[in-house]
Amino acid sequence: MTDLLIRNLRPLGRDRADMLIRAGVIAEIAPRIQAPGVATEDANGAIAIPGLVEAHTHLDKTFMGMGWYENAVGTDLRAMIENERFERRRQNHDPARQSMRHALALAGTGTTHIRSHVDVDTDNGLAAIEGVLQTRETLRDLVQIEIVAFPQSGLMIRPGTAALLDSAMAMGADLVGGLDPCGIDRDPKGHLDAIFALADKFGRGIDIHLHEGGELGAFSMEMILERTRALGMKGKVAISHAFCLGMPDWNRTEALLSGLADQDVAILTTGAPSAEVPKVKRVLGAGLRMGAGCDGVLDTWNPWNRPDMLDRARIVAQKNNMRSDADLAQALAVCSTGGAAVMGVRGHGLDVGCNADLALVPGRTLAEAVATGGPVALTVKGGRVTGRMGRPVDEAP
Amino acid sequence: MTDLLIRNLRPLGRDRADMLIRAGVIAEIAPRIQAPGVATEDANGAIAIPGLVEAHTHLDKTFMGMGWYENAVGTDLRAMIENERFERRRQNHDPARQSMRHALALAGTGTTHIRSHVDVDTDNGLAAIEGVLQTRETLRDLVQIEIVAFPQSGLMIRPGTAALLDSAMAMGADLVGGLDPCGIDRDPKGHLDAIFALADKFGRGIDIHLHEGGELGAFSMEMILERTRALGMKGKVAISHAFCLGMPDWNRTEALLSGLADQDVAILTTGAPSAEVPKVKRVLGAGLRMGAGCDGVLDTWNPWNRPDMLDRARIVAQKNNMRSDADLAQALAVCSTGGAAVMGVRGHGLDVGCNADLALVPGRTLAEAVATGGPVALTVKGGRVTGRMGRPVDEAP
Repeated sequence: MTDLLIRNLRPLGRDRADMLIRAGVIAEIAPRIQAPGVATEDANGAIAIPGLVEAHTHLDKTFMGMGWYENAVGTDLRAMIENERFERRRQNHDPARQSMRHALALAGTGTTHIRSHVDVDTDNGLAAIEGVLQTRETLRDLVQIEIVAFPQSGLMIRPGTAALLDSAMAMGADLVGGLDPCGIDRDPKGHLDAIFALADKFGRGIDIHLHEGGELGAFSMEMILERTRALGMKGKVAISHAFCLGMPDWNRTEALLSGLADQDVAILTTGAPSAEVPKVKRVLGAGLRMGAGCDGVLDTWNPWNRPDMLDRARIVAQKNNMRSDADLAQALAVCSTGGAAVMGVRGHGLDVGCNADLALVPGRTLAEAVATGGPVALTVKGGRVTGRMGRPVDEAP
Repeated sequence: MTDLLIRNLRPLGRDRADMLIRAGVIAEIAPRIQAPGVATEDANGAIAIPGLVEAHTHLDKTFMGMGWYENAVGTDLRAMIENERFERRRQNHDPARQSMRHALALAGTGTTHIRSHVDVDTDNGLAAIEGVLQTRETLRDLVQIEIVAFPQSGLMIRPGTAALLDSAMAMGADLVGGLDPCGIDRDPKGHLDAIFALADKFGRGIDIHLHEGGELGAFSMEMILERTRALGMKGKVAISHAFCLGMPDWNRTEALLSGLADQDVAILTTGAPSAEVPKVKRVLGAGLRMGAGCDGVLDTWNPWNRPDMLDRARIVAQKNNMRSDADLAQALAVCSTGGAAVMGVRGHGLDVGCNADLALVPGRTLAEAVATGGPVALTVKGGRVTGRMGRPVDEAP
């Protein structure tokens, strides 16, 4: 936790001021602060926003820096899962090194908090969990990492996975993950009973991938809600993707949203261009917490995605047909305070007393910052500078 | 038309070779060509692709270089149309200067051919047509510009517009445009009869914006097909956006595609993230010509879009869930040879005898070029270098 004076920043695009950080907390925002002996940065009029929050990604998957991965596998979800396990071994993929690269790249582009799903399966065991735990410890002061133990290859269809998830939670994973209880695991009752039992045992939350569309996804979502209520897990469950909320049946989706709001279930979106997605204004309007993420970056799943939440705000806005200045500011908020609310981060903001976790972005307004997309001039985590001009201060392995 | 020797390029990602251009035409592709006295560029192993084709844009709309435009108008199509006419006057928008900026920016990012819709309305008259005609003439040797006379504000709902369209065609516009005959013009028969009559009178083609979704768009598309058949305009009609082809009713859309193929109607897409779009593989599989465009760039309609067809290939691929290397190469082809086929450009390719219209892009494979998105190292039009490292060689006004 560090002291820092940042001159000439514009909090959320408002008038210029200086910001004094003491012991990692915002101590004062005022014109021309005097703080002799404190390290100083000049924002040159850049906009200050609360630190960006990468709330849905996979730090253990990226092939960044390992050369171009030629993808010939197509888009069938199960084929892609098989292919990834194979490629991890074939290319001797090191989850510790790769998650360091990915997390540092995010720090360079304004991110101060990450929620990462991390694969657990009977081929690779707990290697990915161990790797990301190591990265979390190494980067403790640079970016806060939350780990979801994620049965990417299925739980009921691969016996032994549940015991590995249990071990992952015991080793320090923060949440229990899940994945398409019908579409992948072919046993919604078995899958959901298993992950809710684990969450209950460890007293932790759940973040489940739900790609299932239309009525199938709605059915799984109802079963998630039933278990959330039964176990008293209100406010501790999140659903990632939740594509079924994008289906056209308004009455059906309205009932689902009402149930989600009743149990304070959070929604994570990537703004996926090719899929139906839950709409930002509708989800927020229903009173739900909503965050966003870039999902995997340069992995066996897809060849793109920048580890950059300012760029993701643009993608989310474009997918949601958000164009006005006010809408762009809302999309950006989903990518910072929205994700922080999902992760339960306290004191994430720009008021005095908040954590000094923030990003400086170029632009006259928040909308222009989203539209032009950076580069992020400075990332600050607990008063410490972790990124400059879109790049991390610390060198990746 | 110019001579040029380009050393060490890789045609479509194949082995290195030199390319000799004589009088604007590809004369030879071979290892170590000797051509004393001919200006030489070194591609350093970059991939050569046929020049990119921006086949759906609005050169007369951009506010590039005019400061940040604060958008408070929302997303209603008719409100956006009113707002744009108002802002053109309020900001003293100069279509000649602005279209120069836009077209040169495209030349910088690999584009050699542009199809631009240009507004014609009873408020601003033919000013935009005059401006883009001037730009077309000024940039004659740098980029080929095709002009669609476009009744953006409606045709039947604004009497006097048809006569202006007639004048625009007489002044040198290449195609007759149209727009949502039901949704905007409230008179599909009147609208389509008017634009087809104009096209017939001038012996030119049609490119009509069709945002109408589902059954409404299908109805308009049928009426377009009826007139295409009746006037013997096979191969001379294009439909931009064509969102209705993205509707879920497979039998209905299959019948539409079959009708479009029968009349050789071309489809232009932007890969719009927030809309239903015609799917690349389906449209090409049905035997249709298909091109792509960035649509408007930094205008009153939206705050983003780069004038960059390599970036557009990425957007089209993401919207279409195209991820494999082969798919990415296909998305890129839509953005070059696909658009050229729609525009009826002959000799657009990398074979000996083709026009020397090409772009050099970084990457080991075509897929990597799309995924990393440039910058385009060199744009060549008729043997003349028009862009370097993503920027135009000629200075914009």
